[in-house]
Amino acid sequence: MTQPKRITPRTLKGFRDYPPEAMIPRERLIDTARRVYRSYGFSPIDTPALEYLEILAGKGGEETDKQLYKFQDHGNRWVGLRFDLTVPFARFAAQHINQLGTPLKRYHIATVWRGENTQRGRYREFMQCDFDTIGTRSVAADIETALVIHDLFRAIGFDRFTIRVNNRMVLTGLLERLELADRAAAILRALDKLAKIGPDRVAEEMQATANCTSDQAQAVLELAHISGTNDDVLRQLDPLVAGSETGTAGVARLAELLQGIKAAGVGEERVRIDVAIARGLDYYTGTVFETYLDALPDIGSVCSGGRYDNLAELYTNQELPGIGASLGLDRLLAAMEELGMIEKVATPAPVFIPYFDKDRLDDYLKLAAAVRAAGIGVELFPDPKRLGQQLKYADRRGFRIALIAGENEFNAGTCQLKDLSTGTKQDIPLEPDAASIIAVVKGVLREP
Amino acid sequence: MTQPKRITPRTLKGFRDYPPEAMIPRERLIDTARRVYRSYGFSPIDTPALEYLEILAGKGGEETDKQLYKFQDHGNRWVGLRFDLTVPFARFAAQHINQLGTPLKRYHIATVWRGENTQRGRYREFMQCDFDTIGTRSVAADIETALVIHDLFRAIGFDRFTIRVNNRMVLTGLLERLELADRAAAILRALDKLAKIGPDRVAEEMQATANCTSDQAQAVLELAHISGTNDDVLRQLDPLVAGSETGTAGVARLAELLQGIKAAGVGEERVRIDVAIARGLDYYTGTVFETYLDALPDIGSVCSGGRYDNLAELYTNQELPGIGASLGLDRLLAAMEELGMIEKVATPAPVFIPYFDKDRLDDYLKLAAAVRAAGIGVELFPDPKRLGQQLKYADRRGFRIALIAGENEFNAGTCQLKDLSTGTKQDIPLEPDAASIIAVVKGVLREP
Repeated sequence: MTQPKRITPRTLKGFRDYPPEAMIPRERLIDTARRVYRSYGFSPIDTPALEYLEILAGKGGEETDKQLYKFQDHGNRWVGLRFDLTVPFARFAAQHINQLGTPLKRYHIATVWRGENTQRGRYREFMQCDFDTIGTRSVAADIETALVIHDLFRAIGFDRFTIRVNNRMVLTGLLERLELADRAAAILRALDKLAKIGPDRVAEEMQATANCTSDQAQAVLELAHISGTNDDVLRQLDPLVAGSETGTAGVARLAELLQGIKAAGVGEERVRIDVAIARGLDYYTGTVFETYLDALPDIGSVCSGGRYDNLAELYTNQELPGIGASLGLDRLLAAMEELGMIEKVATPAPVFIPYFDKDRLDDYLKLAAAVRAAGIGVELFPDPKRLGQQLKYADRRGFRIALIAGENEFNAGTCQLKDLSTGTKQDIPLEPDAASIIAVVKGVLREP
Repeated sequence: MTQPKRITPRTLKGFRDYPPEAMIPRERLIDTARRVYRSYGFSPIDTPALEYLEILAGKGGEETDKQLYKFQDHGNRWVGLRFDLTVPFARFAAQHINQLGTPLKRYHIATVWRGENTQRGRYREFMQCDFDTIGTRSVAADIETALVIHDLFRAIGFDRFTIRVNNRMVLTGLLERLELADRAAAILRALDKLAKIGPDRVAEEMQATANCTSDQAQAVLELAHISGTNDDVLRQLDPLVAGSETGTAGVARLAELLQGIKAAGVGEERVRIDVAIARGLDYYTGTVFETYLDALPDIGSVCSGGRYDNLAELYTNQELPGIGASLGLDRLLAAMEELGMIEKVATPAPVFIPYFDKDRLDDYLKLAAAVRAAGIGVELFPDPKRLGQQLKYADRRGFRIALIAGENEFNAGTCQLKDLSTGTKQDIPLEPDAASIIAVVKGVLREP
């Protein structure tokens, strides 16, 4: 007989398999995000992975265009795989908003694709986790966006994180006052590097690329010297934007944002004004957010977003102002891993039943069904192999408890409960409804 | 000013947007499937949407090959979008099984793509929802697969459904006995049409395509006359497979399967032997399942699967026998819609707070935070528009309760709770922790 020709099993560069140990924490994090989004009335939507190329091309800049996975489909239509969830949401909103009505609060958790340079440690397939409120300019939506971010990080298990907020109108106002409004792009590009290269080199770059004077550069950099409590910062911003309507409105909006966040019970230490945050140059027009983990600030923002004036102008003449943010799922999971916040398990069920006595399958099935009916996940090993081998499997998978019964136990009407993390064992009466076993299992699972 | 050039917002033929009203029941169904799979110890995995073309091509037959979305990526590699979750699982298992160990129980809920002919009402992008146990030949895994299907349909909310089971070895045994083993494919293809075209035309087709005698055709069709309880059916099968080792083993395996399912507490009316089920010609080798809704049998099976001898032989020389099934998500959702099992809501939050008094945003934020802290989803309308307009929005979205407070209520220290499904209103004390409001809200939400 000839051997069948085998194909080497492998994944494409930049693409990942998620085995159980990686997927269980991912699913948990996504569940948490959904629960928090839903608790504020954000509804799930989904859109196709493939869109007409004309919907996607040219919407994310030159770099994104290069990275776009595009091809001709069976009908010779040019199509592309979505590279983010914002462009599909803009298309979706333009198409359906008249039927759905405003405000529209949606979350969208889905995969996107970019033919990135993998040498930078980037993946070509990753998940985005966005929420947005469109159809309103109210500061209530800005406040709520911050509250969602706050509740989300608390729900994930973080006590110490900082939501940095700013308002693009403050920067615009300052530049207006300095008569630099026409050079905003170059100046903000330089300012964004403040944390990296320091104030002197930022000033040099501003003079070189925005053609501004040393005094103007220093005036912009006064932003970097602003510090203190949020109230202190607001007071120091007032003179910097004096005379600019936009700037004054921006500072007032920041004050309203902070007041609302405080009213909802969020401590001031969780939300700080950071006047250097600009978050890109064109898209955001009002409130902007970044979120940093206090224990790992250097990994960058793990949840960012802001307010925009018009989501879908490429697809509709209906003006759709809104605000939203996006959770950086991969970056956050890497951080949680580094901080020891991720339990290493490869099973979602806590209880393991070895198939010990080969003639007792019915009894094992009954026991498993009874424990499962109490809402506790149970895996029954399928083959009557050696007990040691089965328990080794249970250890490797990360089960918490084994319920062991062989001929001796069945004859005595008991079952041995083994706590697989401590190794302690106890014999428990084996009743038809497994009531005693369930009570002890619940007790062990409640232990930290 | 010139109008910007607008792009028509549209989706590709065969692709769908899921607005909140469609997505909320989808998410609920997927959650239920995950919960049930997990309760048996099945773990989530995920694999890339894009695979090397050589992994996918030629694995699903000629039709599937034609439907494959394939193209050359940025590195000129030929790649394809997965058309099912079985081929990627086979590739995944071949690649990782040595590290993960057996048995491996996984579920995979993910999108697949096929360039189908949309005139048949098919979609080109849809979700599959599979679970499998590999690395064991034990009947315990077959029993468990049936139990998972049973628990899944109960958890979704169905009381009346039928899991039809068969074993391919019974058919093989019967054909061996009739000396038709070499013509199995043609005979099973004809037999699969029994429900559609009736026994006479099936017999004709068997004689024409499998070149069998009229007596042989009638002997095969005796399968169609078998009826009664599962025990009756087993008794009638015995003589049909007498003398065939495979057939006898198949009948014995069916008996073990049914005994285990019964031991786990599942009523006989939920699981019936149906000796005419073959489920495709090549892939399945043992137990096979189909699941029918008693109220809508004509829509076909909504959850199907079976046992196979070797999952990943194209990618590894390690033999991986297993068993699994797949939930037909779209078909099931359509059935639930038809049966009135899907609530029409476009919000995942039950409570709506209108922004009534424009100077009281802080108070609304406090109230929303207090109710939310009790685990109840709350949406606060972002703009202080007319109350009637806000309540109309709440009705359209499908909120259950509105908490209405204006100047009068705030001065009186109360809040009006309006049950949006009945229209009844009551005034409740507005305490700082909203304890009375939360108690009443919980009461209303518990009502059917």
